[in-house]
Amino acid sequence: MAEEIIGITVKKGENFADWYTEVIQKAELADYSAIAGCIVFRPYSYEIWEFIQDYINRDIKSRGHKNAYFPLFIPETFFKKESEHVEGFAPEVAWIEKKEEDLERYALRPTSEAIIMDSYSKWVQSHRDLPVLINQWCNVVRWETKVTKPFLRTREFLWQEGHTAHKDRKEAEDEVNVSLEMYRKLVEDNMAIPVIAGKKTESEKFAGADYTLTLEALMPDGKALQMCTSHYLGQNFAKAFGISFLDEAEKKQLAHTTSWGMSTRTIGAIIMAHGDDKGLVLPPKMAPVQVVIVPIVFEKTKDKVLKKATELKEKLSAYRVVLDDRDNYSPGWKYNNWEMKGVPIRIEFGPRDMENSQAILVRRDNGKKITVKLFELDKKVSELLDDVQNSLFKSAKKFLKDNTYEAKSFSEFKSAIEKKGLVYAGWCGSEKCEREIKDETAATIRCIPFKGGEGSGKCVKCSKKAKHMAYFARAY
Amino acid sequence: MAEEIIGITVKKGENFADWYTEVIQKAELADYSAIAGCIVFRPYSYEIWEFIQDYINRDIKSRGHKNAYFPLFIPETFFKKESEHVEGFAPEVAWIEKKEEDLERYALRPTSEAIIMDSYSKWVQSHRDLPVLINQWCNVVRWETKVTKPFLRTREFLWQEGHTAHKDRKEAEDEVNVSLEMYRKLVEDNMAIPVIAGKKTESEKFAGADYTLTLEALMPDGKALQMCTSHYLGQNFAKAFGISFLDEAEKKQLAHTTSWGMSTRTIGAIIMAHGDDKGLVLPPKMAPVQVVIVPIVFEKTKDKVLKKATELKEKLSAYRVVLDDRDNYSPGWKYNNWEMKGVPIRIEFGPRDMENSQAILVRRDNGKKITVKLFELDKKVSELLDDVQNSLFKSAKKFLKDNTYEAKSFSEFKSAIEKKGLVYAGWCGSEKCEREIKDETAATIRCIPFKGGEGSGKCVKCSKKAKHMAYFARAY
Repeated sequence: MAEEIIGITVKKGENFADWYTEVIQKAELADYSAIAGCIVFRPYSYEIWEFIQDYINRDIKSRGHKNAYFPLFIPETFFKKESEHVEGFAPEVAWIEKKEEDLERYALRPTSEAIIMDSYSKWVQSHRDLPVLINQWCNVVRWETKVTKPFLRTREFLWQEGHTAHKDRKEAEDEVNVSLEMYRKLVEDNMAIPVIAGKKTESEKFAGADYTLTLEALMPDGKALQMCTSHYLGQNFAKAFGISFLDEAEKKQLAHTTSWGMSTRTIGAIIMAHGDDKGLVLPPKMAPVQVVIVPIVFEKTKDKVLKKATELKEKLSAYRVVLDDRDNYSPGWKYNNWEMKGVPIRIEFGPRDMENSQAILVRRDNGKKITVKLFELDKKVSELLDDVQNSLFKSAKKFLKDNTYEAKSFSEFKSAIEKKGLVYAGWCGSEKCEREIKDETAATIRCIPFKGGEGSGKCVKCSKKAKHMAYFARAY
Repeated sequence: MAEEIIGITVKKGENFADWYTEVIQKAELADYSAIAGCIVFRPYSYEIWEFIQDYINRDIKSRGHKNAYFPLFIPETFFKKESEHVEGFAPEVAWIEKKEEDLERYALRPTSEAIIMDSYSKWVQSHRDLPVLINQWCNVVRWETKVTKPFLRTREFLWQEGHTAHKDRKEAEDEVNVSLEMYRKLVEDNMAIPVIAGKKTESEKFAGADYTLTLEALMPDGKALQMCTSHYLGQNFAKAFGISFLDEAEKKQLAHTTSWGMSTRTIGAIIMAHGDDKGLVLPPKMAPVQVVIVPIVFEKTKDKVLKKATELKEKLSAYRVVLDDRDNYSPGWKYNNWEMKGVPIRIEFGPRDMENSQAILVRRDNGKKITVKLFELDKKVSELLDDVQNSLFKSAKKFLKDNTYEAKSFSEFKSAIEKKGLVYAGWCGSEKCEREIKDETAATIRCIPFKGGEGSGKCVKCSKKAKHMAYFARAY
C-alpha cells in the first residue's frame, strides 16, 4: 500500500498564501514551469476552463456572436495608434526578436484591440456590415514585473476576448451590459462566488476605454479580485483605426466598439473562495468530478462489491462520476485524496451497504453523512449537488457581507482595510483623493456599484461632498 | 439593390493559386493580416476548425485523454536537449527579446515536446503514473522563410498536439496507430478527402522521432498535402528529459512517448479538394451552413412567404440552416453568394411553391434541382446531405485514382511528376536515391504505404532491388 501522507499541511486561516500554493500543486491543478511566471495548466484545472468555455460559447453564440482567430503578433505601429492604450500596456509587453526580413518590431498580444480593429476597419463599410460580433479564445502575454501567482497573475494566461462594433452608442452599451450580465450568471450561479457589479474609476479603467464595467469578488484574505471586465470603448479605437461606415442616410459615421473578457484567473478565485484546510472544495457545476464512488473491498466480497459499484456508476451517468477502484490505496487514503481534490460528493459502498441496498453519501462542503437507499440514489445525488452548490454560494455571500464595512471617516476606513475587508465609503470623485487613499492604505476603488453608488454624505478622505459611494479594497 | 459582382473571377483549372486566394477572401474564410505570413481566421473558417476540435475532443476523451495547457515559451536549454529535434526546428524558431531579469532566451513553441516532456519527467515516477494521456489545443509559431500561403503555410497556426507516455513500446505504438486512425476517419468520413496512410522515410520523419506515420492527400494541382502526423518517439525524449519510472518489479525504466497533431492547414485541404469555378464546395459534415433558404418575395405575398420560410427553417432545426431574408439583395445574387460560400443545399421558396406546398432543392456539388413536397422536406434534406457528402468523397477518390501513376523507370517517373500526379514506384531505401530524386524532380517520398509498401521490382532511380514501394509527389 502506497500510504504516504498527501494532505494539505498548511491551514487556510493561518497562512493563506502557502495554503493556496500547496492546494494548487497537491490537487494537481497547476504546476510551476521552467519559465518564471508561467504555469502548466494541468488537466484538472483545464477541465474547469473547458466548462467556462462551454458556458460562454453557448451564451455568446445564442446572441449571434461567432468565434474567430487573429494573429498573436501586433506590429509596433498598430500598438501606438491609440495613445492611452499603448501607454497602459507598454511596460509589460514582450517583443519578438526582429529578424532581418521583418519590417518592424512585433509585440506578443497583451490584448488584441489593436490587431482586431485593423481587420474591422477593412470589413466595415456600410451600416449593413454592423454589428460585428466576434469573440476570440487565445493566450495573451503580459511580462509581469510584479510577483506572479498561479492563475491570478502569470506572464501567459488564457482568456476570451469579445470585440464588437456597432452603429451607435446605445447598441454598444447594451452589448457591454449584456456581456457583464452573462459573466455575472457564470460567476454567481456556477462558480458560486458573489460579486459586486459596477463601474471602474477613470484611473482604473481599461487603457483606451470610455468606461469599464467590472465584477469584483472578495477573497478570504480580504483582497478583491476582478473576475472580468466589459468595456465601452466609445469611438476611440474606431477613430484610431478608421472603422467607419455609411449610415442609412449615406452619411459617414464612426463605429462604437466594445470589448469584454474573462480569463483563467477565475480558476484561482474558485480555489480561494471555497477551499478549506483539507484542500479544494469545488462547486458542483464547476467540478470535473462531481461524485466519487469509493468501494470498500474485502477479499471475499471484492468482486460482488466492485460489480455493484460499477452498476451504481452507470446509474449516475447524468453526472461526472469516478469509480476509484485502485487496489493499491486504502479507502481512507482515497477519502483524503478526493477531499483534497474538492469532489462535492463521496459515495462509500461496502459489503454491508450492498446487503442493505444502500450507500453512504458524504458531502465535501460540510462533511455530513447520509445513508441512502439505492433506489433513490439518483434523486438524492441530484438534490445533494444542488444543495452543495447553493450552500457554497450562501457561505460566500455571508463572508462578503461579514467583511464589508461602511466607513464614515478615514480612520474607520483604515481600520476596516486593516481588518482585511471591503470598504464602502463616500468619494468626492477626485483622482487626488483616490491616489492618496491608495498611497496610504494600498486600497484602490474596486468599483462604483450599480446598486448604491449614488453619492451621499462626505468623501472619506477630504470630507467634501461625496459624488459617489464606492467599494475600496486591496486587490490581486 | 447592392448588385455588385461578387463571384470568383479565376478558373480553378487555369490558375489554381489565384483561384485559391480569391476563394479564401471572397468566401470570407480568411484575411491577410498586417504581419507577413500570418492570417486572420475569420468566423467562417474558424467554425470549421471548431468542428475539427469537437470531433477530436470527443474521440480522445472517449479514449481517456485530457486536455491541458503548457507555456508558449520554451527555454533555449530545453530545446537543445534532444539534438535531432533542435536541429530540425532551429531555422524557423522565433525568439522573444531577452529582458534583463530573464535567465535565458525563450523560443516561441514550434511544437511542444521540449516543454511538455519536462513536466512529464516530474509527474512520472511509478508504472502507476502511466500512461500519461494529454492533449493540448494551442497556437504554434514557425517563422517560415519560404513563401507562405493561407492555412497551408503560415507563421502562426492553430493545432492540437497529443503527447503521451507509456510503459512499453507496444502500448506506445498502439497509441500512434489509434490516433492515426482517428485522423483517417475525420479526414475521409467528414472532410471527404481520401488519403494514403503510411510511414515517413528517415529523412522526412519528425525531428526526434523513431518513426512518423502520416496521412497524405493529393490536391488538384498535383501536390501532396500532409494532413496530420503521428509519431512514435521511442525513448529519445524520455532519455533527454529523464522520464523514468519504477516498473512492477521495482526496476527503473525509461518511458516510451508519442506525439500526434493536426492543424488548421486541413482547412486549406478542404477548400482545395472540393472547390470549383463558382467557389467553395463544403462537405455537409464540415459546413458551418448546411442549408440556406432563399425566399422569393414579391410585394403582395412577401409576409406570407417569409412566415412560411421561417417555419421551414424551424422544421429543419436538426441541421445548420440560414434563412437569407435580406431585402437589399435579389434571389439571384444570393444564389451566387451562397454558392461561393459552398453551402451544400439551397432551398428556393416562392409564392408558387407555397401554393403547391413544395420547395425547390438545389445541390451545390452538381447543381441538380429537385422539387420536394413540404411534408417530406426534412427527409429529403437528410438524404441529400448524405448524398452530397458521399458524392464529394467519391469524386475525390476518383481524382486520386486517376492521378496516381505507377512508374517503372525514371523517365516514366519524371513524366508522371510533370503530369502533376502522385507516383507509386520502387525505392531501394537509400537516402542517396531519395535525395537525387528530390533534386531532379522536386518530388519527395510522401510515405511508404501500409497497403502495398512491400518492395517489388527495382528502385526507380538506381535500378537496384526495391526495398519498398513508395508514393512520391511534390508537396505543400
